Amino acid sequence: MEKGKVVLAFSGGLDTSICVPLLREHYGFDEVVTVAVDVGQPEEDIQRATTKGRLLADQHYTIDVKERFVDEYIFPSIKANGSYEGYPMGTALARPLIAEEIVRIAGEEGARCIAHGCTGKGNDQLRFDFIFRAAGYEIIAPMREMNLTREWEIRYAEEHNIPVTVVKEKPYSIDENCWSRSIEGGKLENPSFHPPDDIYAWTVSPKDAPDTMEEVSIEFEKGVPVALDGERLTGLALIKRLNLIAGRNGVGRNDMIEDRILGIKAREIYEHPAATVLLAAHGDLERLVLTRSELAFKRIVDDRWSELGYMGLVHEPLFHALNAFVDTTQERVTGTVDVGLYKGSVRVLGRSSASMLYSDDLVSFDTVSIDQNHSVGFSTYFGLQARLCKNLKNR
Amino acid sequence: MEKGKVVLAFSGGLDTSICVPLLREHYGFDEVVTVAVDVGQPEEDIQRATTKGRLLADQHYTIDVKERFVDEYIFPSIKANGSYEGYPMGTALARPLIAEEIVRIAGEEGARCIAHGCTGKGNDQLRFDFIFRAAGYEIIAPMREMNLTREWEIRYAEEHNIPVTVVKEKPYSIDENCWSRSIEGGKLENPSFHPPDDIYAWTVSPKDAPDTMEEVSIEFEKGVPVALDGERLTGLALIKRLNLIAGRNGVGRNDMIEDRILGIKAREIYEHPAATVLLAAHGDLERLVLTRSELAFKRIVDDRWSELGYMGLVHEPLFHALNAFVDTTQERVTGTVDVGLYKGSVRVLGRSSASMLYSDDLVSFDTVSIDQNHSVGFSTYFGLQARLCKNLKNR
Amino acid sequence: MEKGKVVLAFSGGLDTSICVPLLREHYGFDEVVTVAVDVGQPEEDIQRATTKGRLLADQHYTIDVKERFVDEYIFPSIKANGSYEGYPMGTALARPLIAEEIVRIAGEEGARCIAHGCTGKGNDQLRFDFIFRAAGYEIIAPMREMNLTREWEIRYAEEHNIPVTVVKEKPYSIDENCWSRSIEGGKLENPSFHPPDDIYAWTVSPKDAPDTMEEVSIEFEKGVPVALDGERLTGLALIKRLNLIAGRNGVGRNDMIEDRILGIKAREIYEHPAATVLLAAHGDLERLVLTRSELAFKRIVDDRWSELGYMGLVHEPLFHALNAFVDTTQERVTGTVDVGLYKGSVRVLGRSSASMLYSDDLVSFDTVSIDQNHSVGFSTYFGLQARLCKNLKNR
Amino acid sequence: MEKGKVVLAFSGGLDTSICVPLLREHYGFDEVVTVAVDVGQPEEDIQRATTKGRLLADQHYTIDVKERFVDEYIFPSIKANGSYEGYPMGTALARPLIAEEIVRIAGEEGARCIAHGCTGKGNDQLRFDFIFRAAGYEIIAPMREMNLTREWEIRYAEEHNIPVTVVKEKPYSIDENCWSRSIEGGKLENPSFHPPDDIYAWTVSPKDAPDTMEEVSIEFEKGVPVALDGERLTGLALIKRLNLIAGRNGVGRNDMIEDRILGIKAREIYEHPAATVLLAAHGDLERLVLTRSELAFKRIVDDRWSELGYMGLVHEPLFHALNAFVDTTQERVTGTVDVGLYKGSVRVLGRSSASMLYSDDLVSFDTVSIDQNHSVGFSTYFGLQARLCKNLKNR
Repeated sequence: MEKGKVVLAFSGGLDTSICVPLLREHYGFDEVVTVAVDVGQPEEDIQRATTKGRLLADQHYTIDVKERFVDEYIFPSIKANGSYEGYPMGTALARPLIAEEIVRIAGEEGARCIAHGCTGKGNDQLRFDFIFRAAGYEIIAPMREMNLTREWEIRYAEEHNIPVTVVKEKPYSIDENCWSRSIEGGKLENPSFHPPDDIYAWTVSPKDAPDTMEEVSIEFEKGVPVALDGERLTGLALIKRLNLIAGRNGVGRNDMIEDRILGIKAREIYEHPAATVLLAAHGDLERLVLTRSELAFKRIVDDRWSELGYMGLVHEPLFHALNAFVDTTQERVTGTVDVGLYKGSVRVLGRSSASMLYSDDLVSFDTVSIDQNHSVGFSTYFGLQARLCKNLKNR
Repeated sequence: MEKGKVVLAFSGGLDTSICVPLLREHYGFDEVVTVAVDVGQPEEDIQRATTKGRLLADQHYTIDVKERFVDEYIFPSIKANGSYEGYPMGTALARPLIAEEIVRIAGEEGARCIAHGCTGKGNDQLRFDFIFRAAGYEIIAPMREMNLTREWEIRYAEEHNIPVTVVKEKPYSIDENCWSRSIEGGKLENPSFHPPDDIYAWTVSPKDAPDTMEEVSIEFEKGVPVALDGERLTGLALIKRLNLIAGRNGVGRNDMIEDRILGIKAREIYEHPAATVLLAAHGDLERLVLTRSELAFKRIVDDRWSELGYMGLVHEPLFHALNAFVDTTQERVTGTVDVGLYKGSVRVLGRSSASMLYSDDLVSFDTVSIDQNHSVGFSTYFGLQARLCKNLKNR
Repeated sequence: MEKGKVVLAFSGGLDTSICVPLLREHYGFDEVVTVAVDVGQPEEDIQRATTKGRLLADQHYTIDVKERFVDEYIFPSIKANGSYEGYPMGTALARPLIAEEIVRIAGEEGARCIAHGCTGKGNDQLRFDFIFRAAGYEIIAPMREMNLTREWEIRYAEEHNIPVTVVKEKPYSIDENCWSRSIEGGKLENPSFHPPDDIYAWTVSPKDAPDTMEEVSIEFEKGVPVALDGERLTGLALIKRLNLIAGRNGVGRNDMIEDRILGIKAREIYEHPAATVLLAAHGDLERLVLTRSELAFKRIVDDRWSELGYMGLVHEPLFHALNAFVDTTQERVTGTVDVGLYKGSVRVLGRSSASMLYSDDLVSFDTVSIDQNHSVGFSTYFGLQARLCKNLKNR
Repeated sequence: MEKGKVVLAFSGGLDTSICVPLLREHYGFDEVVTVAVDVGQPEEDIQRATTKGRLLADQHYTIDVKERFVDEYIFPSIKANGSYEGYPMGTALARPLIAEEIVRIAGEEGARCIAHGCTGKGNDQLRFDFIFRAAGYEIIAPMREMNLTREWEIRYAEEHNIPVTVVKEKPYSIDENCWSRSIEGGKLENPSFHPPDDIYAWTVSPKDAPDTMEEVSIEFEKGVPVALDGERLTGLALIKRLNLIAGRNGVGRNDMIEDRILGIKAREIYEHPAATVLLAAHGDLERLVLTRSELAFKRIVDDRWSELGYMGLVHEPLFHALNAFVDTTQERVTGTVDVGLYKGSVRVLGRSSASMLYSDDLVSFDTVSIDQNHSVGFSTYFGLQARLCKNLKNR
């Protein structure tokens, strides 16, 4: 029986490169279509993927979705203060969009199978599988299924004339998109190991940052950043510029222990300069314009949003309902936040909004002026049941 | 009828000083007992309170509860990652203990009434009232009840030979204990105003901090810090030392909009160097040793704990139940966290614990070794209902 | 100075009736406008209000909002499984709509003040005050402000030729709208007192109900009931009919201790036959069509919705955001639920929906069929961290 | 190599019976030890398991843990209002205890492997695997691994002289312990099918129940039932008696769609007469004695407790922390609840407690009496931010 076409999620690295001949020889596919999706990886990575895809596959696509990634994934994440176990997500946000693009190509190409190069220990296999399965595709995951060693991979690559650019094992595993850069593996796996400075690429070491604080004014409309220092920018341009500004001030490094989807704890290092600044500013603006009740409940919503976002479960109906909640709250999150960036730290300096629930003359906002005696009435009922409880206990 | 004794919460400032003659003349009490409770205010403030209390009142007490404050209020707050709307609480934590001490003195002195100098707009009146009412005392709050102007107060003080040390209005209102220093009022009330450096007393400006990173290793036992750089210290000594270390590196400043208990938003500036470092380290250690389920639910618990803590509702039975939850989780929060302090920023550098749920050889921890294929089984069920939903929608 | 007009929320009972002359004589208003809002009270109550309003006031309005009450307040409450501390809300849902209508009339009449007859202990004063204050009106509450005795009220009524229909004190206080009837006060205040059967008006005693089970089939569209036994009905007609059907089978009685807004516990008895049936059926349908994740989080959302609904805080932005969440989930809550009503009990007998996430052939719903071995893979990771924890403890 | 001993969780049904020879012949074990754990199954089932175990296995144990099941699993479940998606759990609560007993025997017998007869679709495999894996045992699950047909099983049984009592396929699958009886499978799998009366064994049909209401008075101490109608009983005796009383009044049937652990929805019918009554009474008592804050947060805790309980994750540290929370709240849940049972319905009639936070003279409970004017002060701040929001919108 004919196996037909398979569409392969393609990065141009060793793993996905050897997948091309493997899918033909080992799995018996007649045609391999490679797809590289550009969510803001380094340009040379995208170029390498394009070159290698054209060289190795029957058909190659390179698709630029950077603008969509910002508008449809990063912006909702800002509105939801998206952070998993305390830190901004990056890789997690990009996976569903990459997967959806591959599904689209698979549909256009008439393929019934989709392949990816993920192993069986991480998060990405689950995020990819979820989208591919939801779309009705059979999944091939050679790295997960074949248990190959690196040596075997390199030899196999050489036998198939696949250029192996980096022969010696890379010390760390890195993933990048325009929102975040993650570094893991190697010596970093020891949680007590202090990471060296050379693992960072987007941020200078705080000690090498300028000696004066750099101020940035960020304007938000309905929860989304729209301007820097008064200049309106597209989402992508704004994030790129802010990555530069914050990065040169050493802002945006994180080192954390996180729980992967399967329940395994991992030590991860992140760089996300723009994310650090935007989330700090957004949260500050929310405290100015949202009610205390909104803030308290939204923390629970944001947390659940982030869990689902981390798992890549973007089709989960709960995710849509949480987004509806978040969007409603963001109607009023319009205003400006001034931040100061200095040698690794970010500080909010001031903020303003036409929607702020903050008023010098709160007393006059409705017809009943509030005087100090009213708080006596409030105080009478404050903690009433707790006091009654205390009295019962003392009896 | 005889009014008898009243016990007054006493700071030695203008407000509580004029309360002494007011309680005699205006309220008709026969005796006024002043109580100053030392939770780590500046020493000169405590001395001023002692001197003035002895001068003005029929009886004066100065009570040092600094050690108890750390052990019974700050330590539980660290275990619960205590922060209100995102920032470590300080004043809120100290109020119940101060109030309980005053209740104790009132009991010993046989007073039926307790007085405080709070106005009718802030949080402290409610925190104090709660404790005093729960203990069955009638409350006198001259500042809230009499609507006095500052001019009137100064004149009244002079008429009663009360030394008025600071004649001109202080630009800011400040509250201090060993965990936190808060600055509010004056120009700071404008949320867009960038606060000047001279409002800070515990922290140097980041730009004036040393040019090299200072590393500190913090050891926790059951959620509580017990040693710095290997040296075991009492809680109070540890916090004092860490306030110095972090403060000289410019660490621990915060500027926020917060929701007061009555629902009014306020702009508050805080300094809490030790708190910033300890909460960062504690949270990091928790991520190493607690399960994902514990971490996720504890965020909800911690948040509610902080709300009750902020309101001073320490007798609320829910508060006790939340503490029981927290204490159970902290049994395993033992380990060491290394942090780097540099020009205003704090970064975790590494961590270790005998209880860490992190293991290079997780695969061998129970008899069923985990291989990559097991994740295929997991993936089959991952997001099952969301996929089914998506399929129904596509039909 | 002229006091002008006041608009009075009017029921025609003794309290609001004497408010009319009190507002003229005691408060000095020139004109009193009475407004009775019909949310499904007994018809004779509405007629009494209309007759008395016309007799006593300068201007009287009777406004029928029953359809709006169902569509804009009861339906959202069904979608949110609206129940406070475990029981369907009734009075609470109607108060904001009544208040909004009074605000509308006050606007049309050019009044600056609004009056209500609530006392200072219950919930309704707070629900009314909230809406009136939010609209900028000054509030007059004679019953709360004047501390009148019932004897004084009756004498005052007689002096003003106000017909006092019920001279002897009613044993219970009753509130009714088309969704719920509440009974409180008198002997019921003793929480251990077993309520007699004669307090109920909508439901027969279970022992007097028919000897055979009555089956009803309820059709929902997007979370809202639209048909009974196949017959499409307006919301109001459907609820009225179901109140009869369930009521004659003794279904819908509740007896509970609830926490009023001020923190005082009260013993309340309710009748809400249609509500009992519709909430049981709606919840059952949700379990058929919503994902487990939606169900689990929606319980938290529904609970918060109900708290705000109970307090009447319909302008709280959080309430709008929760509604956006709920509405999104209800898109798929379409289907039919069969219930059996018998001598006081309601039981779901069966249910069906085109959106059900329930399938005999789940295994074939996507291309990867699920076999029993996949659950081994799932099981490998199930409770992984808890097992690791257990192992650490055993060491 | 020698395989040694295996310990088999044994019910005496067809599946676990053929497991004995399968473990010898197919898996190669030298010795098979069977263990039947009595958690309140029908006595004839336990006798059958004992007889067959002795007949087939090398060694058989029947262990009675009914008292422990009540004290250590059911009582905590009552305290946590244990219900999964709205209904009391039964099977789920018993599994960990059964598994722990098997682990104990495996330890005493020196076995390295444990076997169970669960298939790969349900919950029990996961609950058992979790405990066995946590204890370090290798798991054998012939039914999950071998994909046997019923015909093959019967033939295999006959070849091995295993008495096959029920040859024709049972229409439903039933599980029983002293807290709950579940019925599933067969025609019940159609969620719209109305279940016939003959599936029930513990409850009479409401229409066959007595014509007069039966009243029961239940006394609780610290959240746990200790007496019926004034007679103190052990937990097991109390539950047995209440199962009879409520069962004869047709109380305790449930029909629901539930989400299994793997994410598959299932239609389940339950009988749990005592559970229905005790949970209704316990919840009512909690509303009398717990503060509103406790009640609201405990709903979230109870829900999470129930999720973990349903999954059998009793070693999850979060479970222990939730129990610590719950136990603290239950200190005051002491009192008596009167319930009426009548033809399928249960109603609370009255309740009392020395710890009730309900008081006719709340006003006098502390020295500051509450008058009606205090609520004006409260009302001034009630919904303050929501009102401010509304005003901003109207501008």
